[in-house]
Amino acid sequence: MKPVKVGILGLGTVGSGTFNVLKRNQKEILGRAGRRIEVAMVADRDVERAQSIVKGDCEVVADGYLLVNNPEIDIVVELIGGYTVAKDFVLKAIENGKHVVTANKALLAVHGNEIFEAAQKKKVIVAFEAAVAGGIPIIKALREGLTANRIEWIAGIINGTTNFILSGMRDKGLDFNTVLKDAQALGYAEADPTFDIEGIDAAHKATIMSAIAFGVPVQFDKAYVEGITKLESIDITYAEQLGYRIKLLGITKRMANGIELRVHPTLIPEKRLIANVEGAMNAVLVNSDAVGATLYYGKGAGSEPTASAVIADLVDIARVDTVNPEHRVPYLAFQPDAMNDTPILPITEVTTSYYLRMQVKDQPGVLADITRILADLSISIDAFLQKEPLEGETLVDIIILTHQTQEKNMNAAIEKIEQISTVMGKVTKIRLENLL
Amino acid sequence: MKPVKVGILGLGTVGSGTFNVLKRNQKEILGRAGRRIEVAMVADRDVERAQSIVKGDCEVVADGYLLVNNPEIDIVVELIGGYTVAKDFVLKAIENGKHVVTANKALLAVHGNEIFEAAQKKKVIVAFEAAVAGGIPIIKALREGLTANRIEWIAGIINGTTNFILSGMRDKGLDFNTVLKDAQALGYAEADPTFDIEGIDAAHKATIMSAIAFGVPVQFDKAYVEGITKLESIDITYAEQLGYRIKLLGITKRMANGIELRVHPTLIPEKRLIANVEGAMNAVLVNSDAVGATLYYGKGAGSEPTASAVIADLVDIARVDTVNPEHRVPYLAFQPDAMNDTPILPITEVTTSYYLRMQVKDQPGVLADITRILADLSISIDAFLQKEPLEGETLVDIIILTHQTQEKNMNAAIEKIEQISTVMGKVTKIRLENLL
Repeated sequence: MKPVKVGILGLGTVGSGTFNVLKRNQKEILGRAGRRIEVAMVADRDVERAQSIVKGDCEVVADGYLLVNNPEIDIVVELIGGYTVAKDFVLKAIENGKHVVTANKALLAVHGNEIFEAAQKKKVIVAFEAAVAGGIPIIKALREGLTANRIEWIAGIINGTTNFILSGMRDKGLDFNTVLKDAQALGYAEADPTFDIEGIDAAHKATIMSAIAFGVPVQFDKAYVEGITKLESIDITYAEQLGYRIKLLGITKRMANGIELRVHPTLIPEKRLIANVEGAMNAVLVNSDAVGATLYYGKGAGSEPTASAVIADLVDIARVDTVNPEHRVPYLAFQPDAMNDTPILPITEVTTSYYLRMQVKDQPGVLADITRILADLSISIDAFLQKEPLEGETLVDIIILTHQTQEKNMNAAIEKIEQISTVMGKVTKIRLENLL
Repeated sequence: MKPVKVGILGLGTVGSGTFNVLKRNQKEILGRAGRRIEVAMVADRDVERAQSIVKGDCEVVADGYLLVNNPEIDIVVELIGGYTVAKDFVLKAIENGKHVVTANKALLAVHGNEIFEAAQKKKVIVAFEAAVAGGIPIIKALREGLTANRIEWIAGIINGTTNFILSGMRDKGLDFNTVLKDAQALGYAEADPTFDIEGIDAAHKATIMSAIAFGVPVQFDKAYVEGITKLESIDITYAEQLGYRIKLLGITKRMANGIELRVHPTLIPEKRLIANVEGAMNAVLVNSDAVGATLYYGKGAGSEPTASAVIADLVDIARVDTVNPEHRVPYLAFQPDAMNDTPILPITEVTTSYYLRMQVKDQPGVLADITRILADLSISIDAFLQKEPLEGETLVDIIILTHQTQEKNMNAAIEKIEQISTVMGKVTKIRLENLL
């Protein structure tokens, strides 16, 4: 079979990893694919650095349009990131009839519907295994491996930076800002870590998985996004005393009246496998009707782990690029005419369990007042922890774990609890999922 | 697209699960596949029971040859099991130009090379996701998801029965036979559990994964197979005191001089994710050069979990059956001309770490004798545990964890240790892997 010719847009961390792994494992990959994957051109603004990586093995250009307009190239690998230039290049590549491989979760979560529609018209593939959970083949598992199943929910640790920070906070008992600085020094967090620590990156990935799982368009604007910046180490400690770990989870769930799509710090029972995913590792837990719970674990970022996913897509395309497009795996798992418009629920409509922490004056009646409010709103208490006041202190911490209830119901309860005169300040609310 | 017509051979646990999931999730599956998967015929010796399952939705025959010779059928799903009848049916189906989906690990581990060769000649697909780790899409991950990688090793909990028994022995401190009886009562172990508890089933699966990972033919006869029947609960307890869990692992590893392929009880550090896979659950840990460690977890057996894998194969075939066979994913991941003949190493050539338990007379010098023997054979000691003798006893248990060494070297050391007059009886040896 004739080789498939690839152009790489952006030779940064993932781009150079892709180039290097393709070269190093050339024999291995050819042996599996039966067809050579040949990097014909690389585009990077820093031509000199790019040349030092490709070492004369392929042409290097500064202008990405020379690449996406190059008639020799079959597949464009977009590794630039972001919504602007990357989007233009991807749409131009599609317009030129080229297949696209991208690791760009932001682009797909925000502009995926437009991109897939354009690709569908031109009968080209847009593959994006690398966009979710890096080297873990989770897109393949969701789109193909679990194809027999009605997927019920997905919960994933899909941002390595925040998991590294949360592991550090728990292990060392340090506060968020201190561990963030460590993470930055070690290269696990960017100089501007906003996308990671505010949960935006995880929400991009959860948005893509939600669409694939439930056959709906990508709808990043409907996702509820809460990061870990306000998480206090005291809550990590109390959670641990109650047998829970706190993880930043991307969750999407099929409910009777819509789809939940949310990213937030979450208590998980420590016995769950996913609760034991530490450091910068990622894991995605999928619950579906036939197979039950399956979990996929590995490195969610980094040069060669992400390259592994990019190359898997390249080989997939090399196999099926000559095939009747009708036979291909659909972009978002479901055929365009089998998509549905089930709404994404606002966070107030979400149903989950809760961890509540409040500081109260250590005097009779306060607990009765709090539990009365919860009972009136039909919120059952699952566990309760009261810390002894320190010597000379009169305020005590009360921690309550509740059964499932709707977020708006819990918010109503909290509003009332905060009005009790013996409850000091705000109630800290963290969502809790029992998972599998 | 025209529907793909399927015949199911054997409507037992997995067969009925496949039928039921195809029916229940018809809309979901069609939405993804874009093509109807239609069960046109079922063959089962118990026609009446089969009819009660299919409820008139398709023809039921007693004679499997009516199914494999039925010109209407595109794909034959073999769910009979075993090597004899199943093999004949599979080869006949291939001869008739039909694609085959099978969950039969024994058949493929023993006769896979012959079957794949026949299929290659007739340009038909033989798919077997369900043969390894049930509902976990591990074959897809190994053949496609990790296609960029040089796979270094695989270690898997790939037999639910033995993992259930080992979890029970640890949790309840009971001995093997007692927990086996519980497992049988609960349906987690068969009336004749030999294949499971002797490690044969796990070795079938490890054999298949080994071939896929390293591009070698299936060679079940070269696998080292040791079950859990001789495992004593005292070793589970001691392992735990040293921070380890004992699991029955299927291991295959690329070494400089060959491939390791072995199934045996194995100590694993308790912090490893795979050490925390409990009950009848399965998990496969894969280490490869680009992505590093990835882990796949889920139900390794059962009606609908296995059906989930069978149906994923059906959809894959429905997508590519009209495609140039050269473009398909090769049976064993590598193209036939890219296979190699790296030998499978005998167990004596295997390199691993060890847990050793011996009973010694509590008197001076014994420890010096033992450690001298190990030192002379360049075996380093990693940890050491000596239990206090019970009141009135003069014998004490000594447990030694060693660094890596070759099995034949360790066997030589054990032979010498057993000759020490103060060492009583045999030395218990259990292999230890640090994994990732």
